[in-house]
Formats: sequence, C-alpha cells, structure tokens
Amino acid sequence: MEGSTIKAFIFDAYGTLFDVHSVVEKCNEFFPGKGEAISQTWRRKQLEYSFLRQLMGNYETFMTITKSALKYACAEQGAEWSEQTEQALMKEYLKLTHYPEIEDVLSRLKDRKLAIFSNGSHDMLDPLVEQSGLGPLLDEVISIDDVKQYKPTTASYMHAIKKLNVKRDEVLLMSSNGWDISGAKNFGFHTAWINRNGLPVEELNLVPDSIYSDLNGILEWK
Amino acid sequence: MEGSTIKAFIFDAYGTLFDVHSVVEKCNEFFPGKGEAISQTWRRKQLEYSFLRQLMGNYETFMTITKSALKYACAEQGAEWSEQTEQALMKEYLKLTHYPEIEDVLSRLKDRKLAIFSNGSHDMLDPLVEQSGLGPLLDEVISIDDVKQYKPTTASYMHAIKKLNVKRDEVLLMSSNGWDISGAKNFGFHTAWINRNGLPVEELNLVPDSIYSDLNGILEWK
Repeated sequence: MEGSTIKAFIFDAYGTLFDVHSVVEKCNEFFPGKGEAISQTWRRKQLEYSFLRQLMGNYETFMTITKSALKYACAEQGAEWSEQTEQALMKEYLKLTHYPEIEDVLSRLKDRKLAIFSNGSHDMLDPLVEQSGLGPLLDEVISIDDVKQYKPTTASYMHAIKKLNVKRDEVLLMSSNGWDISGAKNFGFHTAWINRNGLPVEELNLVPDSIYSDLNGILEWK
Repeated sequence: MEGSTIKAFIFDAYGTLFDVHSVVEKCNEFFPGKGEAISQTWRRKQLEYSFLRQLMGNYETFMTITKSALKYACAEQGAEWSEQTEQALMKEYLKLTHYPEIEDVLSRLKDRKLAIFSNGSHDMLDPLVEQSGLGPLLDEVISIDDVKQYKPTTASYMHAIKKLNVKRDEVLLMSSNGWDISGAKNFGFHTAWINRNGLPVEELNLVPDSIYSDLNGILEWK
C-alpha cells in the first residue's frame, strides 16, 4: 500500500463500475433464451474489435464498435438483427446498472482526484454516468476517443495523466479487466485489479499491485 | 476471381494449415476430462496475448506467449501446471497435425510462390513444418518475429511482401482466422477466408473476397 502518494484514483468504466451484462434481460426480451449467450459474445467481440482496430490503425469509436459487436453476436447466435433491435439494445447500454458498492466507495474518497477513464466514447459514457447519478462524485470522465488510442496502448494512459495533471506513479488505476491492469502496470501506474469473476492473473509478467473481489478493497489505498 | 494476377499465395499457419486443437488428446493425458477446455483457452489466450503485447509495445516471441497462455489455461481450469507438463505439451505443439487437403492443394499450385506467414517464431514454425513433410511444397516460411510486429498490424504484412518481392495486390492471403483476414484486407491483399468452423464474417467493414469451408476452394484463384 502506498496510499499516501496516490493523488488520482482512476476507474475503468465497463465491467468495473458498470455491469455490462445488465443487458441480458433486454436481450432475452428480443431473443428469448439467447440473452446470456448474446451478451457474452457482444462483450467479447467489443473488446476484440477495439484491439484489432487499434492494431490495424483503423480507428472507429467505441459506439460504432459496440454496434458491430452486437451484430456479430446476433449472427453467431442465429438471432435476427434489425435496426430497431440495435437501437433498443444500444439504448440499454446507456443505462447499465452500476455495482452496489460504488457510491459508498467513491464518497469515501472525495478528497482525492477521482476520474473515469474508458475506451468508451463520450456519446456512450456521458449519458451512462448521468443516468447513474455518479456524476457528482467524480471530477472527470476521460475518454480515449480524445486521442483515438485504445487501452492498453501507452498513448491512451498518457492521455489520462495529461488530463489530470498528475505523474504516472501518483495514480492508482482500478479495473476488472485483466488486460487493462496489465496495460496500466506496463505504463507505470499503481494497479488494483477488481477481480469480480475470480479469474487467474494474466500471464503477462505485469502483476497487479492489489487484487480485490469488489471495489471496497481499494479503501486500503486511501 | 482475379487468379491471373496472383503471384504469391500466402498461408497462415495455426488454424489454417495446422490444427491447433490436435493437442487435445495430449492435454487429456495430463488433465483427464479437461483437454478440450484447456485447448480452447490456450488458443484464446495465445491470440489475446499477442494482441495485447503488440498494443502495449511489449514484445515477446510467440513461443513465450504460447507458454504463458498454457499456464493461464491450466490456472483457469484448476489443472496443475508444472515445467514437465509444459515441456511435453509444447513439444506436442511442434507436431500439430495438418488438415487433410493441404498436400494436394499445395502441389497443384507449385507454379506460384507459396509461403507460410505466421505470428509463430521460427523456433516453433520450423520444426512444425519439417515434421509435417510440407516443407518441399513451400518456397518460404516467414515469421513476424523478424520484425517483431504481430499480425494484424500493417507492418507485419509489409514484411511478408518484402520477403517475397511482390506487390500487395499480387497476393492472395489465406487464413482461417477472421482477424487475420481483416488485417490482410485492410493492408490491401486479396483474401480467402477458410471458415472451417462456420463462423459469421467479422463486423469490421473488411469483407473477405472469398469464403471457403476448407482449402480446396482456393484452387479457383489459380
């Protein structure tokens, strides 16, 4: 724990503060019995497409990528995609539920800089944060879309510290995504992996500084 | 079909010529009943780690990555990893079986430049090609390790055309990996997706020129 030197607490959004699988119910309305499978593939391809577009140098916003991933998920599951379905499910993505401990944890850290830093574009993040009511608890909502560099590139994390005017070793980054923790560690952040699903540590020689099962654990860094 | 202008036929290795899941049997010997699951995760994390290391600018060879992915797969499946197991299973990776149509298809194309182009490093590829007996049917075995740029970056595909001394529109790239086809198309190759598993086309606005269920289809490009 090096809490005393931490000036900024940076939170990943999708999977960390917000439950991406809270769309399952709505998916089941459109595609009875297939909601779980569609939601899983939707998330998997969303991540894969962000990585691939970054690797190919062929950037599109996370909004576009998320729509594309949904289309793939429908095709994979033999579920009929339509513009109407896409609109309804993307609307649901702007209303993802947040995990129950979030408000309490954020409110206990209010003497520090608190920011969301996400691959999501502002057209996704801003409505999501607004409907969640978490906005007043946060100092900044930072999107990689400003620099068009997806996490886990070093350029993406660099953007976050520029926006917050802090040094990399003054940051604790929290994410439930192992690849994000690896990227943040590689960049030089302190890292806390919110391992909500009890997964193994990624084998990338970039071990998280702390591992917690939910966000309450990070209060140790205060 | 623009077969007459194709000077080089470039084949992806893993999944396209060689069946990465031919390790299942050996996995089952070490981890009874878990072979299929370990093999699936092993491949999934192998790809993910190549993407992530490229994105982070933190290159390691495909040999190293493949070992790391196996370690993760064991942890995920609650299977006890040991150095001895790793050695045995990595040895198996140098003996992957190739798909039954390969020899016939390659021998019918012998008037063209034929090359393997793979994310695999030579310490993996060369023994694999040698034991398969496919070597005499190929002009080149090209590894991205020469430039330390994983597919699907444009720099990786650039390396292949430099090695073969051809222009990008003189190439047909064949891969069973949708992300490889997307990257190749993005670079300007002609592409034939060997869709061995009946998957949907990737939603990346980079549609393959041809889609075949196995490699026999590419003879149309002759």
